[in-house]
Amino acid sequence: MNKQLAIGIDIGGTNTVFGIVDARGDIMYRGALSTSTNERIEEFIDDLYEAIKPAIEKAGGIEKIKGIGIGAPNGNYYKGTIEYAPNLNWKGVIPLTELISKKFKVPSALTNDANAAAVGEMMYGAARGMKDFIMITLGTGVGSGIVANGQLIYGHDGFAGELGHTIVLPGGRLHWGTGALGSLEAYASATGVVLTAKEFLAARKDEASLLRDISEEQLNSKAVYDAAIKMDKIAMEVYEITGKILGMALANFVMFSSPEAIILFGGLTKAGNLILDPTREHMEKNLLPIFQNKVKLIFSQLNESDAAILGASALVWELKNE
Amino acid sequence: MNKQLAIGIDIGGTNTVFGIVDARGDIMYRGALSTSTNERIEEFIDDLYEAIKPAIEKAGGIEKIKGIGIGAPNGNYYKGTIEYAPNLNWKGVIPLTELISKKFKVPSALTNDANAAAVGEMMYGAARGMKDFIMITLGTGVGSGIVANGQLIYGHDGFAGELGHTIVLPGGRLHWGTGALGSLEAYASATGVVLTAKEFLAARKDEASLLRDISEEQLNSKAVYDAAIKMDKIAMEVYEITGKILGMALANFVMFSSPEAIILFGGLTKAGNLILDPTREHMEKNLLPIFQNKVKLIFSQLNESDAAILGASALVWELKNE
Repeated sequence: MNKQLAIGIDIGGTNTVFGIVDARGDIMYRGALSTSTNERIEEFIDDLYEAIKPAIEKAGGIEKIKGIGIGAPNGNYYKGTIEYAPNLNWKGVIPLTELISKKFKVPSALTNDANAAAVGEMMYGAARGMKDFIMITLGTGVGSGIVANGQLIYGHDGFAGELGHTIVLPGGRLHWGTGALGSLEAYASATGVVLTAKEFLAARKDEASLLRDISEEQLNSKAVYDAAIKMDKIAMEVYEITGKILGMALANFVMFSSPEAIILFGGLTKAGNLILDPTREHMEKNLLPIFQNKVKLIFSQLNESDAAILGASALVWELKNE
Repeated sequence: MNKQLAIGIDIGGTNTVFGIVDARGDIMYRGALSTSTNERIEEFIDDLYEAIKPAIEKAGGIEKIKGIGIGAPNGNYYKGTIEYAPNLNWKGVIPLTELISKKFKVPSALTNDANAAAVGEMMYGAARGMKDFIMITLGTGVGSGIVANGQLIYGHDGFAGELGHTIVLPGGRLHWGTGALGSLEAYASATGVVLTAKEFLAARKDEASLLRDISEEQLNSKAVYDAAIKMDKIAMEVYEITGKILGMALANFVMFSSPEAIILFGGLTKAGNLILDPTREHMEKNLLPIFQNKVKLIFSQLNESDAAILGASALVWELKNE
């Protein structure tokens, strides 16, 4: 039978990964290319086409492909455009699905990377069978995808779900990119964790820490994690305060859409209970009683690179009735 | 033709209002009774039945009535129950739709009062034709109803949309009922406005204000409004700070569901631009650029007592395909 396969593409600031996926969510072929080396979007799409072409051939040709789903930062579902993405080379408004469909000659759909992850989780991961959940990606930045009544919330303009940019501590830490003071992303991202560690080290100069052996340039979120699992007090407290702030923010999200679960995804979740325990504690503490002890706070069940491909490919099946 | 009419009931802490409404949203008969005088729910429903019965007779009998829609604090849409409503006499979990349907012998549906107002606004008010909007009720408390993809968001458990209880200033003002620190309702409600005025008066003892002529017991939100329109500096600043906090909170809501409009409703909106201008300013200021200058911030077009009845009755038409 024809058109049983979907291509999933996840465009990140540095790398782009892709796969050819069947309707059960098995990735048959996969690959990757650099995102950042192409200054012009047209060149990137040429490179992307050349990279995927051999996999399409192996899968039986383009007539087997129902469509292409793409996840990308600032991806707009309604318009199929990437708009003003700070971490990509291509500035302004990029008509991505138009360019992709023209090149590959199949329909395509775009959403932001966190929405793609939420769709992937709903079809193949921890959110199977759920109609109301929130996906929070804790990576270099903080992204989110919100599902209510079984549907992704895109909002009026296709940009809904920018929970990383909600203000959680008014007048708080300056965000390096947006200029906002006290947004969630300024704290609960890998970047935020490193900034918190640096603040703690500067403010508590008399306190020993394994983190003091690391140069300022090499102090990344993995180093904080490595120190925390060795019971380094400052590193552990970095996770506690990060979880406290994240938990407060999650409580607000729960009182908005009352989800069955919040699914955490991305690099920061590697810290396991170091981040999960304080997050859960402070989420519960800030909830109205009618919401307490109801919301599952869980990690994604998909591995990170697969989730990105699966989530993007799932957009193709989502589109099947349109 | 039969069953063209709906009964809308709005149960408030003090009074209950009701009306018989046709499908165009015209209220044919209306009435009211006391909520607070009945200690037992069964007695209240008996009184409600006696109060509505003459109107049902005038409308042509119960066979003309398709159903009853009810808005009530802590009303749960899925279960038809009122659960632990702090401002009602009836404690615990009240199976309201079961009791109402048994007494009136027609189907009934329940939601919280702010959700009912949102449905009313969508069918008959400022949100006609909108698929994505948020209704915020600024009364004694702060309530909310959220519509996304053309549907009310009830969440997993039917309690979604408690935006008044989201934390906007962590560690801030103690909420008199919930014990939370810094929730939106502690500031952006009639109660919050009075508390802010009292704080300002206490902190700025050397500054003259019309509000100083009013006894502590008589200082209510209307007194603050009356002073503000007479250009009283402290009273005007009460609205400014209230709008600032409300605006910050609205920015967070916009980055959640990216609505076409936020519709403000309830007593506080009588202050007009005194509250609207600072709210809009600080909402815009806290939004990511992709959301700026897009969201309509408007007042409800329904008058308050009609909106309550219309919104509740609209639940009946919402249920028509179930």
